Amino acid sequence: MHLYDYAKQLVLEAGNHLRKMMSEAIDIETKSNPNDLVTNVDKAVEQFLFDEIKTTYPNHQIIGEEGHGHDVHDLKGTVWVIDPIDGTLNFVHQSENFAISIGIFKDGKPYAGFVYDVMADTLYHAKAGFGAYKNERLLEPIKDTQLAQSVIGMNPNWLAAKKITPVLAPIVSESRTARAYGSAALEIVYVATGQLAAYITPRLQPWDFAGGMIILHEVGGVATNFMGDPLTITHPDSVVVGNQAVHKTIMKQYMQPHHDFLAPWHTNYRS
Amino acid sequence: MHLYDYAKQLVLEAGNHLRKMMSEAIDIETKSNPNDLVTNVDKAVEQFLFDEIKTTYPNHQIIGEEGHGHDVHDLKGTVWVIDPIDGTLNFVHQSENFAISIGIFKDGKPYAGFVYDVMADTLYHAKAGFGAYKNERLLEPIKDTQLAQSVIGMNPNWLAAKKITPVLAPIVSESRTARAYGSAALEIVYVATGQLAAYITPRLQPWDFAGGMIILHEVGGVATNFMGDPLTITHPDSVVVGNQAVHKTIMKQYMQPHHDFLAPWHTNYRS
Repeated sequence: MHLYDYAKQLVLEAGNHLRKMMSEAIDIETKSNPNDLVTNVDKAVEQFLFDEIKTTYPNHQIIGEEGHGHDVHDLKGTVWVIDPIDGTLNFVHQSENFAISIGIFKDGKPYAGFVYDVMADTLYHAKAGFGAYKNERLLEPIKDTQLAQSVIGMNPNWLAAKKITPVLAPIVSESRTARAYGSAALEIVYVATGQLAAYITPRLQPWDFAGGMIILHEVGGVATNFMGDPLTITHPDSVVVGNQAVHKTIMKQYMQPHHDFLAPWHTNYRS
Repeated sequence: MHLYDYAKQLVLEAGNHLRKMMSEAIDIETKSNPNDLVTNVDKAVEQFLFDEIKTTYPNHQIIGEEGHGHDVHDLKGTVWVIDPIDGTLNFVHQSENFAISIGIFKDGKPYAGFVYDVMADTLYHAKAGFGAYKNERLLEPIKDTQLAQSVIGMNPNWLAAKKITPVLAPIVSESRTARAYGSAALEIVYVATGQLAAYITPRLQPWDFAGGMIILHEVGGVATNFMGDPLTITHPDSVVVGNQAVHKTIMKQYMQPHHDFLAPWHTNYRS
């Protein structure tokens, strides 16, 4: 079977497993801080994907949120970047609004992206160069917008007296309004569908953006860090995704004036 | 037909009309400011509801966002409080994530609430004293939570250097995380389902909260303004809705210390 079709079928199967596990008791643990949660379901879904892929493609490399391949730095061959549950807080508190995210790269280049909104049963998917789809519907190229007429995605946490607040608050003030859905993968695909004009967040891991970024590129969207550098799957980064016009405005008018503040901060990210 | 069953059928019919109108061109106008939008669909849905109700119940009073009954101050008899599209920005920018909201009051007392998520085809509804439902499923009483383990609803706009920001930012900082969905009616029913522990916003109109508030009360949730006073359908107000424990925490630890700042501001609201 073709790798793209294989991956598409696999993410849907993983979603089926996930939905079944939700009828059983869920064990919740904390990771880096009391609000960074992981559950037995996150781990089981990543293990399922890992085992399936390794059985079919023993030579593929896999980087997963819950521990697989965090030592992968050589991007030769085929690399899968997996988030078994993007939006774990939504999974725990809402039982919906989370996604399985998969990005596949060949020799470091984007090959295919999948973001599966499990409870809505909506699969966003793209093979690089062949367009992006919401289920079976081809997504149109996204339209440019002015920030003042844009709905943007940003979590309120970043505006509650954080160091980054003075950079981000003016963007929200200038926008038409803001939304926060709690899943970076979904928020990136909402930019791809045009439901958000941009999504901005100070720190994501590669598994949070790998799948969505590939989908976004297929409809003409732009994804960089706060410095304007491209995102890579070997390290975490700050993220601005948007249609071309609004991304340009955010970079030029709201990020570049803070260059001196942002630059050293990004050196740390990439270390 | 019983008034409750009539209203339930009517809101579903209005949703059908609304979905049909979405296949045609939508006219957008601004109201109080460039981000306060109204469309021909908002107006048509309100007119449909008004005409249907007045034909069946000529003596009922109707207060609607788009112009009906803004002079209603006498709450004797039956009063309908209607928002034809709560979340108009979502309607315009996303084509989903908006609701028809209806609250029905008899002699000023809550009788029934309806919040219809039109594109998800999910109806939240309650007859006062008889429990609240999500479609046909009876909602359980909501559980108390601690703010530090709570997902709360708050729009990022209120944290972007507004006068109210110093009051609201510490609540977000203490919470587990925050969400912003852009429809007050939906955010209030998400508190009723437990998907949010609280929803906080500095200013809503009666048609934004009338339907959701009745649903929320049926599952033991609390709704007041920032001063702790009950909400009424005769004037706009600030809004804190939540489960009992988190509402108490927000009022005692985060609102009461700002009493002197909040009090005069609320006098203006109620004038």
